[in-house]
Amino acid sequence: MPVPAPNLYPPFNIVRLSHVAFTVTDLSAARRFYADTLGLQVTHEDDTTIALRALEERNHHCILLTKGDEPRSSALSFKLYDTPDLDRAAAFFEGRGLPVAWVERPYQGRTLATQDPHGLPLEFYVSMDRLEPIHQQYARYHGVRPLRIDHFNAFSPNVDESVAFYNEIGFRVTEYTEDEESGKLWAAWTHRKGGVHDIAFTNGTGPRLHHTAFWAATPLHIIDLLDLMSTTGYLDNIERGPGRHGISNAFFLYVRDPDGHRIELYTSDYQTVDPDHEPIKWDLKDPQRQTLWGAPAPRSWFEEGTLFHGVTPRAPELAAQPIVAP
Amino acid sequence: MPVPAPNLYPPFNIVRLSHVAFTVTDLSAARRFYADTLGLQVTHEDDTTIALRALEERNHHCILLTKGDEPRSSALSFKLYDTPDLDRAAAFFEGRGLPVAWVERPYQGRTLATQDPHGLPLEFYVSMDRLEPIHQQYARYHGVRPLRIDHFNAFSPNVDESVAFYNEIGFRVTEYTEDEESGKLWAAWTHRKGGVHDIAFTNGTGPRLHHTAFWAATPLHIIDLLDLMSTTGYLDNIERGPGRHGISNAFFLYVRDPDGHRIELYTSDYQTVDPDHEPIKWDLKDPQRQTLWGAPAPRSWFEEGTLFHGVTPRAPELAAQPIVAP
Amino acid sequence: MPVPAPNLYPPFNIVRLSHVAFTVTDLSAARRFYADTLGLQVTHEDDTTIALRALEERNHHCILLTKGDEPRSSALSFKLYDTPDLDRAAAFFEGRGLPVAWVERPYQGRTLATQDPHGLPLEFYVSMDRLEPIHQQYARYHGVRPLRIDHFNAFSPNVDESVAFYNEIGFRVTEYTEDEESGKLWAAWTHRKGGVHDIAFTNGTGPRLHHTAFWAATPLHIIDLLDLMSTTGYLDNIERGPGRHGISNAFFLYVRDPDGHRIELYTSDYQTVDPDHEPIKWDLKDPQRQTLWGAPAPRSWFEEGTLFHGVTPRAPELAAQPIVAP
Amino acid sequence: MPVPAPNLYPPFNIVRLSHVAFTVTDLSAARRFYADTLGLQVTHEDDTTIALRALEERNHHCILLTKGDEPRSSALSFKLYDTPDLDRAAAFFEGRGLPVAWVERPYQGRTLATQDPHGLPLEFYVSMDRLEPIHQQYARYHGVRPLRIDHFNAFSPNVDESVAFYNEIGFRVTEYTEDEESGKLWAAWTHRKGGVHDIAFTNGTGPRLHHTAFWAATPLHIIDLLDLMSTTGYLDNIERGPGRHGISNAFFLYVRDPDGHRIELYTSDYQTVDPDHEPIKWDLKDPQRQTLWGAPAPRSWFEEGTLFHGVTPRAPELAAQPIVAP
Repeated sequence: MPVPAPNLYPPFNIVRLSHVAFTVTDLSAARRFYADTLGLQVTHEDDTTIALRALEERNHHCILLTKGDEPRSSALSFKLYDTPDLDRAAAFFEGRGLPVAWVERPYQGRTLATQDPHGLPLEFYVSMDRLEPIHQQYARYHGVRPLRIDHFNAFSPNVDESVAFYNEIGFRVTEYTEDEESGKLWAAWTHRKGGVHDIAFTNGTGPRLHHTAFWAATPLHIIDLLDLMSTTGYLDNIERGPGRHGISNAFFLYVRDPDGHRIELYTSDYQTVDPDHEPIKWDLKDPQRQTLWGAPAPRSWFEEGTLFHGVTPRAPELAAQPIVAP
Repeated sequence: MPVPAPNLYPPFNIVRLSHVAFTVTDLSAARRFYADTLGLQVTHEDDTTIALRALEERNHHCILLTKGDEPRSSALSFKLYDTPDLDRAAAFFEGRGLPVAWVERPYQGRTLATQDPHGLPLEFYVSMDRLEPIHQQYARYHGVRPLRIDHFNAFSPNVDESVAFYNEIGFRVTEYTEDEESGKLWAAWTHRKGGVHDIAFTNGTGPRLHHTAFWAATPLHIIDLLDLMSTTGYLDNIERGPGRHGISNAFFLYVRDPDGHRIELYTSDYQTVDPDHEPIKWDLKDPQRQTLWGAPAPRSWFEEGTLFHGVTPRAPELAAQPIVAP
Repeated sequence: MPVPAPNLYPPFNIVRLSHVAFTVTDLSAARRFYADTLGLQVTHEDDTTIALRALEERNHHCILLTKGDEPRSSALSFKLYDTPDLDRAAAFFEGRGLPVAWVERPYQGRTLATQDPHGLPLEFYVSMDRLEPIHQQYARYHGVRPLRIDHFNAFSPNVDESVAFYNEIGFRVTEYTEDEESGKLWAAWTHRKGGVHDIAFTNGTGPRLHHTAFWAATPLHIIDLLDLMSTTGYLDNIERGPGRHGISNAFFLYVRDPDGHRIELYTSDYQTVDPDHEPIKWDLKDPQRQTLWGAPAPRSWFEEGTLFHGVTPRAPELAAQPIVAP
Repeated sequence: MPVPAPNLYPPFNIVRLSHVAFTVTDLSAARRFYADTLGLQVTHEDDTTIALRALEERNHHCILLTKGDEPRSSALSFKLYDTPDLDRAAAFFEGRGLPVAWVERPYQGRTLATQDPHGLPLEFYVSMDRLEPIHQQYARYHGVRPLRIDHFNAFSPNVDESVAFYNEIGFRVTEYTEDEESGKLWAAWTHRKGGVHDIAFTNGTGPRLHHTAFWAATPLHIIDLLDLMSTTGYLDNIERGPGRHGISNAFFLYVRDPDGHRIELYTSDYQTVDPDHEPIKWDLKDPQRQTLWGAPAPRSWFEEGTLFHGVTPRAPELAAQPIVAP
């Protein structure tokens, strides 16, 4: 098995993924998409930025939109368990020769900015402004009724390397796809918070962000979003789905925001809190790993992703993904 | 069996229930309830009236609210099949010595106003203004996402008499409750349009309107309405449910509008278009006829109803309903 | 508008579609599919035939499987309103020079066998054996929990001719697709029982049966069927969906039985009982008419269908359907 | 605020609740209830015991039934993170003067048996036999389609004491009810695995087990169970619901097994993994804390619970719960 044993005592304690920062070219178009259509709640808004949270979140935001010239992401952010974890994290990344900086972030305490070995920008913090609960303010529920940010998925030029690194900092593999011929990992799903993933890696030109996922309560809410998007001018923003993933067992839909950032609406994966939870292996040749029901994904889904600011991705060492789709 | 054989060739052809007219004491409160909370669509609005339709309806309205001093209903309206049916209906009611008048109704063609033998005000018409479809304008969907008016339920002082009369004009019984001791009908559900009922009758001081029901797509939409009402100031308007009726097999919720008019949200009864569809008999002593899952209805549900303008109800000949509830 | 005005006074009264008869090559494989997987209830079974009904039906069967050498359908059956309608129907078809025969059918009263002008075999009856209700025997519910047969869809070599004929016998058009260039009908949905259709016609080599549809309560039940079929050896039997049709607004899934007969699982279309219900027109070039959310149908869906015993279909006069799919 | 600050560094690491052991008086009746009706999967069965797991679980069992003379529970079991946590736990409980024993449990590694300060029997282990995943064997799904054990709820004679103790061993309070007059805790929900609770405590004669909850995917699955139970002889086993809790925001149903052990079916609470997640306070006088929609619970729900083998409960110090119900 190419998946490393879980590291039960990582050098610092990551609680969960926290938020993503996107550069968007048209703030009002982005607001219509994320707030009016998806149903995220605006928690801050000015001429250059919009912050949003999902309905059961107390953190100030799970997505931060900044106006800019090109669609990019600046970093993927993760919440740490306690104050000492920040310095432990800094020491760990420094020890690996990775860049470390302490940065100011709105609504957030002390924040560490760094990168993974492929250059993927990561940020870590312990405390963010906490807001009053709104999950029982049902008049706010609309769109897909997004409940929380669920996970990131990133293209990696070498998934074995990504998994080795994230495993070392405590991410545990729940499912993975192996290229039977080379014995190498094609993709892997790794978690901290007890679901199938906080972050997944897929073979491809990277680092690039493949998608950011939000949790919806049931498949019916995702069907509602399809009905809404297809009758309010967002038909071309529907990229793939609905369907059930073989991997993760989740019901899914992929849509693109007005700048092309890919968003997944996701529900009904499973609990993975046991530290001895056994990862599930899939064969790269099994089309049901992608869609249990057999429908292929479109070419764009395999090829397109969000660039990170200032990071030049490199081609993967394994050949391009064997696309089943037309 | 106390239920008469269906009259396959009634004297005139009723298509379905059409709409209810309510007098409400506060139009803006009623608007907040019916439009903002239930999710009906306003099709006309002025200082004294509001008309609303449900999301898949093409008729101008299924409910007409008029400002007045006391909560009342002025009539229950039914759509006839074709123009000749109007004169046939008038002749039939005249032949029974029941009052017949031709009245003007907004957005509606020639309209016959009459009464059933107990004095329940009925109106019949063939044509109402037709509006553009909105059922694929998903941005309009909110509240319980009401799709169409489904049925009326009325208190009758003598259900055997009501069933005999409505059977004669073509309503077919789908289910009924018999008082085993007297052999008399306690309640009956009768239809024209192919569901469990267009109008039901229940033993009680009548004629009074027990409730008007709207069809929702699934139980989840009714749960959404409960969440919304209980967190937007309508907690006390929730009267009974959610539950599944034994009779009709429908998933239900009963709520009261700000004036006390009772509205049912209803889904998943069954198709009854076969003219030889056999009615289902329930024993008055079987509590599952009301709620398949066993929960009792509150006292108000058995006792309260909407008066019709100018109609004094009389007490039923059978004793008051054996209330199972506290 | 190429759609004829509805015939409010047809020569005989058709209540609804009733059942389909299929020849299947392997009865036990068909039983596993229809009973064990879809969840239909076996009401008769012997060495050569299986009869099934859906969960809310009282009629003895909605589908009749007979063992044979080749996958075929022998006829589409419809229920008439009353005994005199049988002779009226016979007179009507004779008047058109169409073949008329009185045939014996199991569990069924007097039965008329005939054909439409293109040779599509039709059967009409008034009474079929009625069974006890099982819709509240919830222990029986499994698979997609099919509630009732909903409609047929047939390839027609000339949809204008089909619509003209079925309109004459009382079917009313609810939605249709027009080929804007020729002004001809490409497809039309026509009903008797108050939903979007009892039978639809699509341009293609015909007469052939495109599919038979069963009603499920909600999209979640259809998702359950996808999960079940894709993990019990029926992955390749999933042909198209899930999705929402633009036309009919229904949530759908198309699957193939072991002999290739196409079955649709269908839910949430709308009520059409008003005789003045206005048909909705769709442009052949609008891809959302097929799938509101934009996903194309596979080629097989446009081309394949079930032959009727002894009937040689002919090519349509309009060019083959412009397939959007790969 | 009477709720202690979370203990971020507890003396040993509890991952989650694991399983409950019930004594039942009729094994075959219990099997019909848990396996045939709820839909749990039997993983072991002999003349005296039945072990079951839910559909997404890999652990050998989440419930262990043993035949006996009286309905009892022998212990509530929790999974620890790693081997050293066992000895740390033993040392902690010994240090409190609580009984500690190493016991043999089927399918389980080294197991510590102890009690909380009120005498509630607890067991801790690190490893249990792991089984192959079955969550994508959809042919197994039936009943309420239970996905995993979710939480315990116990009567406590002093909730402040219970919360203080469980907080010390790492359980974090997510919601609580305060008796405004005495300033004491009436009830509290505490978690380890990132949902609203692994174990909750309610004021009452204790220690007794109030209920054990299983997670279902959506409210529709819980409605399915109501339909099934009410038509297969389990009508009287339905105790309370369906409804939405104010506390936890979960959709719920309470049923009783044939011996009276109370089982909750539970879905859609929220994620609480953040160590700085702020608990929500409810006033004992607010009826919406129990049911957001206002329906009261029956008296049995407030009074009845499962005794633990050999443990005599004592009356609470606070007066009996102010029952809103009849």
